[in-house]
Amino acid sequence: MTSTDRALDGDLPRQRLTVAEIAHLAGVSAPTVSRVLNGHAGVALTTRQRVEAVLREHGYRRRDSEPAAIIELVFHALESLWALEIIQGVEQVAREHELAVVLTEMQGRLTPGRAWTEQVLARRPTGVVAVFSELTVQQQSQLATRSIPLVVLDPTGEPLHETPSVGATNWSGGMAATRHLLDLGHRRIAMLSGPTQWPCCRARLDGYRAAMDAADVPVDPDLVRVSTLYMEGGLRDGTELLRLPDPPTAVFAANDLQALGVYEAARRAGLRIPEDLSVVGFDDLSFTQWAGPPMTTVRQPLVQMGAAAARMVAALAEGEPLEQHRVELATTLVVRESTAPPHR
Amino acid sequence: MTSTDRALDGDLPRQRLTVAEIAHLAGVSAPTVSRVLNGHAGVALTTRQRVEAVLREHGYRRRDSEPAAIIELVFHALESLWALEIIQGVEQVAREHELAVVLTEMQGRLTPGRAWTEQVLARRPTGVVAVFSELTVQQQSQLATRSIPLVVLDPTGEPLHETPSVGATNWSGGMAATRHLLDLGHRRIAMLSGPTQWPCCRARLDGYRAAMDAADVPVDPDLVRVSTLYMEGGLRDGTELLRLPDPPTAVFAANDLQALGVYEAARRAGLRIPEDLSVVGFDDLSFTQWAGPPMTTVRQPLVQMGAAAARMVAALAEGEPLEQHRVELATTLVVRESTAPPHR
Repeated sequence: MTSTDRALDGDLPRQRLTVAEIAHLAGVSAPTVSRVLNGHAGVALTTRQRVEAVLREHGYRRRDSEPAAIIELVFHALESLWALEIIQGVEQVAREHELAVVLTEMQGRLTPGRAWTEQVLARRPTGVVAVFSELTVQQQSQLATRSIPLVVLDPTGEPLHETPSVGATNWSGGMAATRHLLDLGHRRIAMLSGPTQWPCCRARLDGYRAAMDAADVPVDPDLVRVSTLYMEGGLRDGTELLRLPDPPTAVFAANDLQALGVYEAARRAGLRIPEDLSVVGFDDLSFTQWAGPPMTTVRQPLVQMGAAAARMVAALAEGEPLEQHRVELATTLVVRESTAPPHR
Repeated sequence: MTSTDRALDGDLPRQRLTVAEIAHLAGVSAPTVSRVLNGHAGVALTTRQRVEAVLREHGYRRRDSEPAAIIELVFHALESLWALEIIQGVEQVAREHELAVVLTEMQGRLTPGRAWTEQVLARRPTGVVAVFSELTVQQQSQLATRSIPLVVLDPTGEPLHETPSVGATNWSGGMAATRHLLDLGHRRIAMLSGPTQWPCCRARLDGYRAAMDAADVPVDPDLVRVSTLYMEGGLRDGTELLRLPDPPTAVFAANDLQALGVYEAARRAGLRIPEDLSVVGFDDLSFTQWAGPPMTTVRQPLVQMGAAAARMVAALAEGEPLEQHRVELATTLVVRESTAPPHR
């Protein structure tokens, strides 16, 4: 029986595949395989892909040396307190495990580039937490073959069945925000959604619809807008909503920044919050309690979400089974002064 | 001439001191010196200190291998957008130089602990940027003997003559904010300062005094308060100021968070901004433009400050001389809607 046969034999542990065997299968030299495994530059793309294909096919798992005491934290963008709270949570767990946190910002891109992948493979970290990011199948398998665990926080794409992930109970949060407005007596309730291809945004919108349906209040399609998750989006779409012939008496925004944009739209339209317009946000970033007026919002436990993701990475790195593959931490409605009964 | 003599001879390059020579001078074994140099654990504190003393005395500079492609970024605390903007600046330059950013939060402490130092020495980064931190003389010399450049952003302690640093023109910013209020016709202008043992805070306060003096407006000691740089501080001290028998018509706060606290103090006192009270902040964090009303504030170019510190580290690591040992980037007054002439 040749070494190749042995590697292909399902009865034997797959991680036994040696570098020499991989080299043979991929038709390259052993040093080339090592260079690919260690993320070194200087390997042609097609060669690299051939080696990666062999690794993937044979479910290769590297386990020949200790990983570096590093946790990689990658963000699509570092642009609001939202990111900072997640960093705090990851830092906290990293400290407990004596891991350094390597922080990478992708300047708004959702998928890291090849340079990032190469650097991460070369650093051989204990694990990766990717926030609001979409790693390619290729990138996921490159991490997997090096036994580098990956946990995604607020995944952007299709529900990922294979990758462990952390999120918040967005649907329940959307439901709670809308029910609060209904309980106050509002019926013309607008929803400013974020991009609905993102599960977190879609879930908030679905929660809104569910609450409206449960209260037998029909959803006016004019009152549902898909906007960006920034203040500018809230300002633009909030302004349009307030100019409707039959404007809303309340707006539920998909995040706090959007809600601040609605504040500004109301101010420009000469409307007072909450007397003329109720506004609910989502996230509970620290500035919301100091907004004028303090904002009613749905709290996401972002620090805890960052900590949970880092804890999952640490557990996976130690070979422990995960208690849950998908963790959703609870959202809570925080009632402040931006909501009141409608005065009409 | 013994090797020890050679090492002590001022005419010969000092970095020639070998590990064996250091071991001899410190009365320890060569492997022990290597462990100290590499930041490994398992060396008794007194032994480590003896070795460090020899390294320091002889101006030892390690240069035997390439540093890791890492820049260490250490913060006293990650708690506001202030931190996030600095991170963005450091990330940007790190990307240009293909350096990974290792982020450490010291949970509010100004001086990193021994664990941090050991980890940094073990990682052998290209350099360190310490934000609003106070490294001990010992820590500074530990970095220096390993040729790990250190740049401090907004140093907290006495002006550091040896350590390169980056800041903003805080004095000019304080002056500009105060002159703006004077130009509007205010005379009862309060200053909420941060802790004045910190140079950045002291400079803002001095700028306020200088502008008042230049306008021949006496400073009422009742109107100058030293507070914390948080919203809670601004709320507490702002409330006290507004309860004075002869309250101020304008408040210049040492940062935006404090200014938001003054907003809240005014709201609770039933005062409108800017009609009844003008408020100026400092920093220009992104939420200020969306505060109610949008805040007049002094902009610190935090992203550029982070980038400048990282660039200095990269230059030092490449052995390039610094153009300036101390860089102060310009502040700018941003006039929005929280300031107006006094109505009395």
